[in-house]
Amino acid sequence: MSASALLKSRVRRPSYLKKLAKAEELMHHFPNGSYIGWSGFTGVGYPKKVPTAMADHVEKNGLQGQLKYNLFVGASSGAETENRWAKLNMIERRAPHQVGKEIAKGINNGNIKFFDKHLSMFPVDLMYGFYTREKANNRLDVAIVEASAITEDGGVIPGASAGASPEIVQMADKIIIEVNTAAPSFEGLHDITMTDLPPRRKPYLIMAPEDRVGTPHIPIDPERVVAIVESDYPDQTQPNAPEDDTSRAIASNLIEFLKYEVSKGRLPENLLPLQSGIGNIANAVIGGLAGGNADFKNLKVWTEVLQDSFLDLFDSGNLDFATATSIRFSPDGFKRFYDNWEHYYPKLLLRSQAVSNSPEVIRRLGVIGMNTPVEVDIYAHANSTCVLGSRMLNGLGGSADFLRSAKYSIMHTPSTRPSKTDPNGVSCIVPMCTHVDQTEHDLDVVVTEQGFADCAHPDYVPILEDYFNKAEFECLRKGMGHEPHMLFNSFDMHKHLVDHGTMKLDKWNWYG
Amino acid sequence: MSASALLKSRVRRPSYLKKLAKAEELMHHFPNGSYIGWSGFTGVGYPKKVPTAMADHVEKNGLQGQLKYNLFVGASSGAETENRWAKLNMIERRAPHQVGKEIAKGINNGNIKFFDKHLSMFPVDLMYGFYTREKANNRLDVAIVEASAITEDGGVIPGASAGASPEIVQMADKIIIEVNTAAPSFEGLHDITMTDLPPRRKPYLIMAPEDRVGTPHIPIDPERVVAIVESDYPDQTQPNAPEDDTSRAIASNLIEFLKYEVSKGRLPENLLPLQSGIGNIANAVIGGLAGGNADFKNLKVWTEVLQDSFLDLFDSGNLDFATATSIRFSPDGFKRFYDNWEHYYPKLLLRSQAVSNSPEVIRRLGVIGMNTPVEVDIYAHANSTCVLGSRMLNGLGGSADFLRSAKYSIMHTPSTRPSKTDPNGVSCIVPMCTHVDQTEHDLDVVVTEQGFADCAHPDYVPILEDYFNKAEFECLRKGMGHEPHMLFNSFDMHKHLVDHGTMKLDKWNWYG
Repeated sequence: MSASALLKSRVRRPSYLKKLAKAEELMHHFPNGSYIGWSGFTGVGYPKKVPTAMADHVEKNGLQGQLKYNLFVGASSGAETENRWAKLNMIERRAPHQVGKEIAKGINNGNIKFFDKHLSMFPVDLMYGFYTREKANNRLDVAIVEASAITEDGGVIPGASAGASPEIVQMADKIIIEVNTAAPSFEGLHDITMTDLPPRRKPYLIMAPEDRVGTPHIPIDPERVVAIVESDYPDQTQPNAPEDDTSRAIASNLIEFLKYEVSKGRLPENLLPLQSGIGNIANAVIGGLAGGNADFKNLKVWTEVLQDSFLDLFDSGNLDFATATSIRFSPDGFKRFYDNWEHYYPKLLLRSQAVSNSPEVIRRLGVIGMNTPVEVDIYAHANSTCVLGSRMLNGLGGSADFLRSAKYSIMHTPSTRPSKTDPNGVSCIVPMCTHVDQTEHDLDVVVTEQGFADCAHPDYVPILEDYFNKAEFECLRKGMGHEPHMLFNSFDMHKHLVDHGTMKLDKWNWYG
Repeated sequence: MSASALLKSRVRRPSYLKKLAKAEELMHHFPNGSYIGWSGFTGVGYPKKVPTAMADHVEKNGLQGQLKYNLFVGASSGAETENRWAKLNMIERRAPHQVGKEIAKGINNGNIKFFDKHLSMFPVDLMYGFYTREKANNRLDVAIVEASAITEDGGVIPGASAGASPEIVQMADKIIIEVNTAAPSFEGLHDITMTDLPPRRKPYLIMAPEDRVGTPHIPIDPERVVAIVESDYPDQTQPNAPEDDTSRAIASNLIEFLKYEVSKGRLPENLLPLQSGIGNIANAVIGGLAGGNADFKNLKVWTEVLQDSFLDLFDSGNLDFATATSIRFSPDGFKRFYDNWEHYYPKLLLRSQAVSNSPEVIRRLGVIGMNTPVEVDIYAHANSTCVLGSRMLNGLGGSADFLRSAKYSIMHTPSTRPSKTDPNGVSCIVPMCTHVDQTEHDLDVVVTEQGFADCAHPDYVPILEDYFNKAEFECLRKGMGHEPHMLFNSFDMHKHLVDHGTMKLDKWNWYG
């Protein structure tokens, strides 16, 4: 194969060009049961050509269920890759996070073994050999990583995410690099650190979001590179979830809380580094900070993923610097980013998820952490993953990395969600969470559209008060009143939802 | 007052001796509602004379309930101080951990407001002003700290614990120092770091348990020292909980697991720094490592508290270095320690709890973390604090500091505990924990006397298998099978315990 001029301009290591291949020529690297690592995080920077060719191969040859893989990606990749793999029954095992209807279906019907781990820990646990315990050599068979360019010494300049690529590359016997020429080179936008194991680990000498401690590329052992593939289409992202009245009200309450903390001297006027998730509430919060009435200047961001609203925050002039492990912009957002590259580039840095989500750094910087739960209980435990205790959504992600270590650990949620028959059928504030991912020891503040102290929906306030009053009375009486519960009634609101389509109990039917 | 020769030999700052006072002369520093910080951790290094004088004052003058304090100590102090305070209704609020029947009673009958926080976080949260939010000046009124000696520049050399003393001293308007002359000076045994706030925090440059990064004393502002009191009796510790067959079997299973990990190349032959808690299982584990058949050499320890069994481990020649925030030896253990000071001293270092329990360092060092829970569920969530979801025992302590960040996060527990009527009436392995302090994302290994993979008691294996099989069948069928539960039966074993004195259900009575 001969390389295009565009590809040659990106690949500064000439020997790699001799390994140029088409994706469909690489199928022999992937026998059934292979352990495979991909680059990618929150649906950006993932490999596109080889996974798609593998899916085509399975589909064309009717190999569904006969080629199943152990798949490890820093977080989610693209729907056209891993979700299609799930649909074609190509995933035996997946960690540590995922997005996609088919993959969630496979996890919840028992077809895909999913291991749900803190995003900061997954790469190191991979290096420890915890995910390859059943293999003889404790390693991954193949890493497929997307590059936006390749350095003279063969190092990979990632695209829009760093994720777990450094560790996946370290752990893989064979490396396939997809050089994406459909998006610009991201050279200079990354700060990459590799992972060493105890007793040889070192501190991350990061004292501010803008501090660089690594290299601009992922160092690669060239002898392990088995192929280079040119990739010709960009990350398939979706438009952002739009704000609505509820998310704007939540954002407004949250900003009020932050202003209060500043007024009491517990926060500097420019706050502390912000972490914000994905979704319409996160968008509204960041949008609110960019808006006129928030009035915070010289903000900095230490987070996991940046979405479009951060471009607005940059443009407002209030954001001095942002660092994350991925930039997951919408197609319009990416266009805006590329068109104004010189404006954003000096204020932005992408790190591996082991660093972006590192409790060490999050705690040191005093990050303000903000996340959206499935449900929160009256004692501030939160469920981030499993509906009704069992049905997996996307996984824990980095929520607990941030909420455990942040100076302020904030959960923001609508006070209710609709059920099939009641627009407020599900209260997000419950007596006891059906699954606990964040404990009371980790959450400081719960914010809904109702407020930041009293945050239940008015329809549920009397129901929750009844529960609390009865529980307090009974538990104090029995000398077990630190955290009062009517334990055998604690899921009655969920039971009512399952049986009657709404959590609105008419009356508590106390046990005992 | 004139100072004794012994006291003079310990206090190298002459101006402090002018402030020498008797404890009972200091009552005016403690109006009702004062915010008070004490030194102390796991019942050692706590102030003795002033708290006792305050209790005497309340008792003598019938002031029960009229002098109530907000009390902050790194962890537990002595029974004769805080437990007596609880009995005399002198505690309005307490954080972050406690031991004592009367204090637990006060917490569970609603008389004492208890805030249960990670021991690593408490000192920093105190500095943030989170515990003094209701005060005008965001500070503690008085710190009472025990010293074993005082340096030329007025710094405090603590005794057997460092705990939260650095931060408590930083936060206090007035400081009272109790110089304990009943025990030797601990000078040289501490490595003290003070806490600064974001955005000015720095990394802990600790790469091994023996690394020193601080000063041998707690720096003190001499102008805030209002009194020096001579203290004339030692820490009132108890003998250690003895090993028994169960704890020895647990230790043996755990050591087998560690050997297996070494054999697979996932652990070095001298393991990685060990963390171990208090109690007879922890004693048996450390005892097992000191015994002949474990055969691990050159061990190091990074933990929160050292108990007597570590002296055995030192004496076995297998322990090269140990660091913690307290040494809580039995009276015999302290004698042994003092008698062989020159032998132990070079291998030992005490740090503040912000450092000993720091996720930053625990993760960097790859600590092997071991703790005992109240109960663990079949998906590896653990309850460390609240029996039946409500009754507080001692608090979270450092369990989650270590279990979240350790390389290996291990819970060791007997598979059952006795109820009033059944010697195996309580299964420590349950379908769902009634309170979650450690999540499935944090625990790696559960060990009981039954084993380290299958760890339930034989009496409960069929009961738990029935639950799991039914839950798996129903949840997979409904497409919610990631973590199968019969949610509305998940506490039936606890219900049976409450109603019938044992968790041994004859038959599951499935809901729906």
